[in-house]
Amino acid sequence: MKPMGAIPADFRAEGASLLIGGRSVDDLIAEAGGTPLFVYDFGIVARRIARFRGAFPSVQLHYAIKANPYIPLLKFIFKTVNGLDVASAGELRMALGAGANARHLSFAGPGKRDLELETAIRAGITLNAESEGEVDRALRIADRLGLRPRLAVRVNPEFEIKGSGMRMGGGAKPFGVDAERVPALVRAILDGGAEWRGFHIFVGSQALSADALIEAQRATLALADGLAGAVGEVPPLVNLGGGFGIPYFAGEQPLDVEAIGRALDEALEPVPPSLAGSAFAIELGRWLVGEAGVYLTRVVDRKVSHGKTFLVTDGGMHHQLAASGNFGQVVRRNYPVAIANRMDESATEEASIVGCLCTPLDRLADDVMAPRAEVGDIVAVFMAGAYGLSASPQAFLGQPPALEMAVGGGD
Amino acid sequence: MKPMGAIPADFRAEGASLLIGGRSVDDLIAEAGGTPLFVYDFGIVARRIARFRGAFPSVQLHYAIKANPYIPLLKFIFKTVNGLDVASAGELRMALGAGANARHLSFAGPGKRDLELETAIRAGITLNAESEGEVDRALRIADRLGLRPRLAVRVNPEFEIKGSGMRMGGGAKPFGVDAERVPALVRAILDGGAEWRGFHIFVGSQALSADALIEAQRATLALADGLAGAVGEVPPLVNLGGGFGIPYFAGEQPLDVEAIGRALDEALEPVPPSLAGSAFAIELGRWLVGEAGVYLTRVVDRKVSHGKTFLVTDGGMHHQLAASGNFGQVVRRNYPVAIANRMDESATEEASIVGCLCTPLDRLADDVMAPRAEVGDIVAVFMAGAYGLSASPQAFLGQPPALEMAVGGGD
Repeated sequence: MKPMGAIPADFRAEGASLLIGGRSVDDLIAEAGGTPLFVYDFGIVARRIARFRGAFPSVQLHYAIKANPYIPLLKFIFKTVNGLDVASAGELRMALGAGANARHLSFAGPGKRDLELETAIRAGITLNAESEGEVDRALRIADRLGLRPRLAVRVNPEFEIKGSGMRMGGGAKPFGVDAERVPALVRAILDGGAEWRGFHIFVGSQALSADALIEAQRATLALADGLAGAVGEVPPLVNLGGGFGIPYFAGEQPLDVEAIGRALDEALEPVPPSLAGSAFAIELGRWLVGEAGVYLTRVVDRKVSHGKTFLVTDGGMHHQLAASGNFGQVVRRNYPVAIANRMDESATEEASIVGCLCTPLDRLADDVMAPRAEVGDIVAVFMAGAYGLSASPQAFLGQPPALEMAVGGGD
Repeated sequence: MKPMGAIPADFRAEGASLLIGGRSVDDLIAEAGGTPLFVYDFGIVARRIARFRGAFPSVQLHYAIKANPYIPLLKFIFKTVNGLDVASAGELRMALGAGANARHLSFAGPGKRDLELETAIRAGITLNAESEGEVDRALRIADRLGLRPRLAVRVNPEFEIKGSGMRMGGGAKPFGVDAERVPALVRAILDGGAEWRGFHIFVGSQALSADALIEAQRATLALADGLAGAVGEVPPLVNLGGGFGIPYFAGEQPLDVEAIGRALDEALEPVPPSLAGSAFAIELGRWLVGEAGVYLTRVVDRKVSHGKTFLVTDGGMHHQLAASGNFGQVVRRNYPVAIANRMDESATEEASIVGCLCTPLDRLADDVMAPRAEVGDIVAVFMAGAYGLSASPQAFLGQPPALEMAVGGGD
């Protein structure tokens, strides 16, 4: 038997059925028209946003669309956050199409093409510049267009979040500009006649240690203070990055967001001298939406091989690559899963849950204890709201697309 | 510096430019309309097929579509192989749409839905049954339709290919039926009035050791012989599986296919008694098409961080997940890459080549020696013909789709 992560506390069952947004999985699947199906509970997203607001009353909240670009989610979320961060011209079009205001959008990403820079400058969104070369190109394009570009500088800091799942700062990195070259680049932006929007400092993601995040935010503030002092101008916005993780695996604990909020309050009281007048933002993706999504897939076959039970489902890694262990993980571990129509039964059987793809990579849960499941039963894979469908190889093996639907959130 | 795999011997340069199918990369990109671009050289595919025919004169060759379902490739390949293997109803539609004859198609995959079984039975293709339950469902569906299904049995053997990149047999597996239960299942197929098509025995993939493959094929033949003897009927077809690997990484050597052919000839001389009258097939994907594909992507930014040079391209893991190291690999290693418009220059610079996605997972080559490259240069990632675009998260971060084109092959 192998352990699995804990089902998020937001979910409960009624009788045999898992409820999502207060509705049974059978009801949801019937409305959507089948499986595999991603259900996103906007009520959970709203509670995460409210929790953030309570913990960080004076800090802006930005949503990183790359975590989940589902259009109804964008329409729901942009009204309640202060900004959206896009990572391509495609995401920019999604955000604008969902109704977001260009003034609340920023665009980060190390490989922005000229056409993407032009699209962003025309739309009037903030570009988080990743290099001197990109600033050069943006200024030239803006000049040609007769427009004044809005440019922030993404900083590659010397430090990282200790123990974060994914390091994006510290040492040589393709993201941002090494800190010591940032003041000169800001001067070039100002001298080039652009509107300087401030700093974007992103040091990691999927961190579950409040202490590590507190330390990283303090270091980020000190770095921004030093850079602003060297520039001699107050940055309009300091994007402190994100990095808030969620507990995917057995033994992981939810992040103590309130502790981070208290520490940031302290660090900003008083505001470091060179940042007096700056606004501060935290940019989150996974933490806001990851736990709100459930991937529902149906058992197509139940089989035994050498005494081991396999439940073969109609879903798989083509929709939930991360759960299969092929999205940055070194060692595969089990996401939380459940037999969603047997929530009132005891876990009496050890089974492996696999996808329908004809490859040994397509695993959803290895050797987990679950109620005995039969063909037709529904498997729920939790933690599917971020880096799920859009981060998966949807065309692989010619399988049909997953369905997506939203529940909750009051609309 | 980190090593990279060797560029396949099929490719050469003329002056500064890499040639694919005898044409310069600039020419190909101009015709396709830009980058990122997959170019598939059908001449290489044709040479692989010819080499297989020379080495295995009396064995059928099947193509596993899942390796690359690019429609022009299917149209090219189905005329020169004996069968196509599909892994979903979607791939079945692709194969039929490309013009393949249903009699030459087989369908393997552990999670076939009822609708997929129905589609396959209506089309008259062979189902490689993965379990007793699947046979039950197929017989019931065929009965309802008033059709006689064509059923082979996929066997989960006790052995595996030693050292194969991906194990699909040996021990408890979601694929096929444990060997000791196979005779009873074949009897059920015969008693159910279905047309029994034989055995499908697939023990692994991406093996580079001829000795290991020879041993696996001998064991497969012995297993098929024993099973046919237990059944008391001659299997019309014995699919010996595939498993032929290609050398992705530094130090790997191409497979000695001719040695495998000679050994199989010996093993079939004489044919094992219970298989007298059987046809034999080898089913290949990666080995036929993997080396024929090149992924071309353009340098968008050249930047230095802490003394390390990064070339940021307009492509990335959303098109070539496998090259990023996130497709079954435990430790990321470099695929062969080249600066495709500087083939006549010496490798004087150590650089890391990354994709345009805003994630540290998006790496195409780490710390490789290459000619000094500038913005606008073309990076070629080789070994991109199998498990490339269709196996990648194409929607990730809202990036535009990759282009695909074919060259060579005489049409």
